[in-house]
Amino acid sequence: MATLQEIGQRAQEASRKLQILGAAEKDRGLLTAAERLLRGQEEILAANEKDMEKARAAGMSQGLLDRLRLTPERIEGMADGLRQVAALEDPVGEVLSMKKRPNGLMIGQKRVPLGVIGIIYEARPNVTADAFGLCFKSGNAAILKGGSDALCSNQAIVACIQKGLAEAGLPGEAVQMISSTDRAATQAFMRLDQYVDVLIPRGGAGLIRTVVEQSTIPVIETGTGNCHIFVDESADLDMALEILFNAKTQRIGVCNACESLVVHAKIAEQFLPRMKERLDEKQVEIRGDEASCRIVPSFTPATEEDWGKEYLDYILSCKIVGSLDEAIDHINRYHTKHSDSIVTRDYANAQRFLDEIDAAAVYVNASTRFTDGSEFGFGAEIGISTQKLHARGPMGLKELTTTKYIIYGNGQVRP
Amino acid sequence: MATLQEIGQRAQEASRKLQILGAAEKDRGLLTAAERLLRGQEEILAANEKDMEKARAAGMSQGLLDRLRLTPERIEGMADGLRQVAALEDPVGEVLSMKKRPNGLMIGQKRVPLGVIGIIYEARPNVTADAFGLCFKSGNAAILKGGSDALCSNQAIVACIQKGLAEAGLPGEAVQMISSTDRAATQAFMRLDQYVDVLIPRGGAGLIRTVVEQSTIPVIETGTGNCHIFVDESADLDMALEILFNAKTQRIGVCNACESLVVHAKIAEQFLPRMKERLDEKQVEIRGDEASCRIVPSFTPATEEDWGKEYLDYILSCKIVGSLDEAIDHINRYHTKHSDSIVTRDYANAQRFLDEIDAAAVYVNASTRFTDGSEFGFGAEIGISTQKLHARGPMGLKELTTTKYIIYGNGQVRP
Repeated sequence: MATLQEIGQRAQEASRKLQILGAAEKDRGLLTAAERLLRGQEEILAANEKDMEKARAAGMSQGLLDRLRLTPERIEGMADGLRQVAALEDPVGEVLSMKKRPNGLMIGQKRVPLGVIGIIYEARPNVTADAFGLCFKSGNAAILKGGSDALCSNQAIVACIQKGLAEAGLPGEAVQMISSTDRAATQAFMRLDQYVDVLIPRGGAGLIRTVVEQSTIPVIETGTGNCHIFVDESADLDMALEILFNAKTQRIGVCNACESLVVHAKIAEQFLPRMKERLDEKQVEIRGDEASCRIVPSFTPATEEDWGKEYLDYILSCKIVGSLDEAIDHINRYHTKHSDSIVTRDYANAQRFLDEIDAAAVYVNASTRFTDGSEFGFGAEIGISTQKLHARGPMGLKELTTTKYIIYGNGQVRP
Repeated sequence: MATLQEIGQRAQEASRKLQILGAAEKDRGLLTAAERLLRGQEEILAANEKDMEKARAAGMSQGLLDRLRLTPERIEGMADGLRQVAALEDPVGEVLSMKKRPNGLMIGQKRVPLGVIGIIYEARPNVTADAFGLCFKSGNAAILKGGSDALCSNQAIVACIQKGLAEAGLPGEAVQMISSTDRAATQAFMRLDQYVDVLIPRGGAGLIRTVVEQSTIPVIETGTGNCHIFVDESADLDMALEILFNAKTQRIGVCNACESLVVHAKIAEQFLPRMKERLDEKQVEIRGDEASCRIVPSFTPATEEDWGKEYLDYILSCKIVGSLDEAIDHINRYHTKHSDSIVTRDYANAQRFLDEIDAAAVYVNASTRFTDGSEFGFGAEIGISTQKLHARGPMGLKELTTTKYIIYGNGQVRP
């Protein structure tokens, strides 16, 4: 098994080759890899069966087993994903601006790959193919560390992609995975800043916190989402009801689902009973502050802890406020800076909410569920950044690049 | 003395006010602060004298004492700096793009302040005023931690700025400093991610490494520079000589000074003796590889350690290579990704160097000394980023901002 140092070195070497590939060559690599995944279906399914057996023996829940399971359709989905990425525009090489300075120097800023991207994830094995596709198209080498439950599946997927790249005459080391499953290997990976330019953790709050605490590689935090919807006094209450119902219940386990409702006191008596009735359709438990529990006594009383919670479940916290100011303060205090929405008819309140809520995506009169790479028109996403450095919100191909200054001179020296 | 938690909380509160200030109000704050610095000249000089006495007693070198010393001219310089920042364009509020999605959602990306910026620095007390100015103009609250040698000077400067802001009716907590000089306070500061959005260390390699290792706040690494100049076989040797002489000797203690010369073997015999003669004017010590020592026996033999070294001194390493490929490999291996330059007449070699050297600024036929915010036309800079995330190269006001997505809907929910 390759050491981490060797993996890092190979990734760096591969990245030097990838950075100068044209879009046509990269697309050929993606299509060949897609085709090779389909041809390798049997190996992949056999490897996945090993993971499944181990997981069943360990008593994994049905929900998690379903996430782990691969089928011919899911492998077709991975291949499709790679084909879709091939169809996206190549972000690399664009010169964002070029200006002539008074001394004649031409200074331009050019979009280039980041270099080597590390990705640590817990989720489904299809993330392996997706992450490779986005990194490769943007000219980056990828080092992947997936969850130990999916180890055999991930190894089989990576092996197929590497073979596909080799068939296309491209460097197979464009994607490598760390097979060692012990904690020490993960910790060493997070300190491989000599070779890895950026580390992206994808998973629960615990994983992300560990990476932030321990990594010496620059990290892009991806998102836990405690998303809020504020129903203003002037809101169209029917609209508010539909937006809230959608944001809370359309899919509960995702970071852009709504976790907390904030309601203006002036319409609370009118809105909350209707809201309760609508959310009862999905048996949503509502945890309200004192004022809202007085209006709907069947609400569960909320504790301080509820305001900051990402439930990822059929649970909603509910808070009544006396003003827009109070709503903004409450949301900025407890949210995770992911996505928040105001439902209002008031022009000034809409603008203030957009200006003053400090989040990656701030909405007026729409569901928070739209914070997503494909909904934003990026074609695909590697995650949703909840930090402010480098990228904020859904990250597509462009967010996997950096820039360099290119300077054309004819002998200039500094006086 | 305020606790770190209190400082963080106040900064966050101030940042919420700053983010919605218009350019006119911010400029008024900067001008009032500048004026207040001049009015506070006596207090500042008295505080500086305390620092100087302590430093003299501790046996500080003349060079460092000179960096620490404030004079009426240097205070005037700080005030001037703030006035210049006031004259720059406000980066905040620009909408970089706005598009209508098929479902009618209008999705825009708007430039907003980062929030709270932490800066740890070792250098001159004038950095205190400069850092405040750039953070304030870009709508950010700043928490500053300067070197302990300049503690009294920094306190006096910050006090003046805070009074100036208060006179202008603006939040004085827009700039705060951490006065505690013990290591534990610095370590706690680096973990204040609850309040601080970005941490920028400015100083030597040791400081920067400590911050990268220990910070849980996203860091922008600023630059050590092991800058290279490659003299290609087709180079105009007179031009190469002037560029090298400028990049090596115009100012030795800066990150964009040249530290290493790479020469094509075909012109080495012709170029090196002339180069030696020219650099003798400034008594530059040249540490060469075997091949170059054979050509100029008075070169000091270089060790492996020399190739990676940022001398910040009248010393230059010198390496002979047989090809452009070898030059690119050598530079990418040993440089710090700051600034590198090729001197050549060959079109294809120039383009390959620009494409394949992985640095913040890559030059053709110009001195590396131009990597600088004011030379690039930014008006001022907070530092030079040598990392790839968020900002690369000189960082001006724009690099102290982030974006948020603003989404205008009319009831959209996700199907």
